[in-house]
Amino acid sequence: MAVFITGVAGFIGSNLAQKLIAEGQRVFGIDNFCRGRRKNLEGLEGDERFRCVEGELTNLSEFRAIVEAFHKEEPIEEVWHMAANSDIPAGVADANVDLNDTFITTFNTLQVMEALKVRIIYFASSSAVYGNWGTETLTENFGPLMPISNYGAMKLASEAAISAAAESFLEQAYIHRFPNVIGVPATHGVILDFIHKLKQTPDVLSVLGNGSQQKSYLHVDELIDAMLFVREHSEEKRALYNIGPDDDGVTVRFIAEETVRQVSPDARIAYGSEDRGWVGDVPRFSYSTDKLKGLGWVPRLDSRSAIKMAVQQILEQEASA
Amino acid sequence: MAVFITGVAGFIGSNLAQKLIAEGQRVFGIDNFCRGRRKNLEGLEGDERFRCVEGELTNLSEFRAIVEAFHKEEPIEEVWHMAANSDIPAGVADANVDLNDTFITTFNTLQVMEALKVRIIYFASSSAVYGNWGTETLTENFGPLMPISNYGAMKLASEAAISAAAESFLEQAYIHRFPNVIGVPATHGVILDFIHKLKQTPDVLSVLGNGSQQKSYLHVDELIDAMLFVREHSEEKRALYNIGPDDDGVTVRFIAEETVRQVSPDARIAYGSEDRGWVGDVPRFSYSTDKLKGLGWVPRLDSRSAIKMAVQQILEQEASA
Repeated sequence: MAVFITGVAGFIGSNLAQKLIAEGQRVFGIDNFCRGRRKNLEGLEGDERFRCVEGELTNLSEFRAIVEAFHKEEPIEEVWHMAANSDIPAGVADANVDLNDTFITTFNTLQVMEALKVRIIYFASSSAVYGNWGTETLTENFGPLMPISNYGAMKLASEAAISAAAESFLEQAYIHRFPNVIGVPATHGVILDFIHKLKQTPDVLSVLGNGSQQKSYLHVDELIDAMLFVREHSEEKRALYNIGPDDDGVTVRFIAEETVRQVSPDARIAYGSEDRGWVGDVPRFSYSTDKLKGLGWVPRLDSRSAIKMAVQQILEQEASA
Repeated sequence: MAVFITGVAGFIGSNLAQKLIAEGQRVFGIDNFCRGRRKNLEGLEGDERFRCVEGELTNLSEFRAIVEAFHKEEPIEEVWHMAANSDIPAGVADANVDLNDTFITTFNTLQVMEALKVRIIYFASSSAVYGNWGTETLTENFGPLMPISNYGAMKLASEAAISAAAESFLEQAYIHRFPNVIGVPATHGVILDFIHKLKQTPDVLSVLGNGSQQKSYLHVDELIDAMLFVREHSEEKRALYNIGPDDDGVTVRFIAEETVRQVSPDARIAYGSEDRGWVGDVPRFSYSTDKLKGLGWVPRLDSRSAIKMAVQQILEQEASA
């Protein structure tokens, strides 16, 4: 039986494909190569266990035809739905971006799964579904959910649609709420931004916001490890898990300083005055991963070590680009 | 300043329009007259404080043009977004029904409000956002939200989109989670179904499910009273309230017996064997209205009295139809 990955050429999708193939699975994938890159799949080229087709999830008939063809080649047992908008400010500027790329992609994934009777889904949700709650501890049973970005809103809308589908045709729905995920191949995010800025102006790094925003960061290898651990150990029909490191995160100041240290040690850091980088940015949150820890999963890296490793990996990526 | 009501010809929208006009407000409205009925607006015909145009909320340019024209006539200060699918089983059979009629209607309402700088919304959400939690007490800060119908899912998606909009352009967002609402003009629902069945077969009433499903029922007059009370007394930017009577509800058995008593006292009641009426039906829930009570609102009727009154009113409605 094969697995199908949406957004397979993206940052997380491409890492996931490699991991599943390394475990001996047959992997099919789709990507519109809008944010995902062909380069991210280079390591899989020529591997007969891997197949990827270019297509739009928002075009239901095209999407369905692609999945149907794969399904005939080898029956698809589960779908890992990783495709989404990953540019949160773009979705704040135009709500249609997240409506289409973050929510309709999910809605159509469910439509195709129902039609082809594929009954297991793994969904890349987000800590952004919670909203801005300061220092309150965000467990999976926290409420109310009050997202402050369209990205967070459409991730929550996706969770809701999946929950309803679990009542009708899904056998199991794994909903993973991701923290900030870092590593390579980096396509977006704060570290890549900082590196690009420092390449342009090596003497100064200007930072959106005052640097006090504090968040948890997880390395992509650990994220995938955690999801596969939940797949192995959870029996819940709707398995909802916060995934993250076992700490309260690091500040943007720390990330700026670490990037400067590795890239351009003499650069000055110029901060803004706001407590957040953009509308829809959650300045601080305390993310509980107790449920995941209770299941037995232990992260190897804390947020600081993950940042340090990711800065180094992204620097190498950019040097070879 | 005027108010604008979506779904103004529906059961709740038409009652709301009458109430707001009685309070001296100018009311504009839109309805596609798919589930809403012209008959429901008869009492407002000729009233110069009321204007209604036929239009599709899912057609953004048409919808926007209608609101824009009203807005030029008299500036719209607030939107009461009541339009939605109201046929939950239809949305379970085809997820597109609730995608379009329950969620895209909300998304487009927000798009139009942003364009016209209308900054206050009242939203008809639903207890269906919670899902099926048996006897657990459902307060506004209950989580996780795991809707079991596409209707509940798309109401939750709407809440999420409104929450994000409150971060960017809305001044205030009132999100009211409705229980089952009864009264006249009835367009759908369990009481109307039972009355229709008894008219066809006066000697037997066949009931979907085993009759043990237990829910809270609120009379529409009280629902509107509660929403106007929250409008008056809550200062929260995102005012989220469960609205309901002060009891744990009544069983379908009670509703069946009361309808039989009033319509066809000698009829036999034939129950099904399932604990619910259809896929997506929540068999039982315990709905907390403590937050609303804490604000000072007191319902006049309990679920039983509301059912008795509604059966009588719907009977009168059907007799004069």
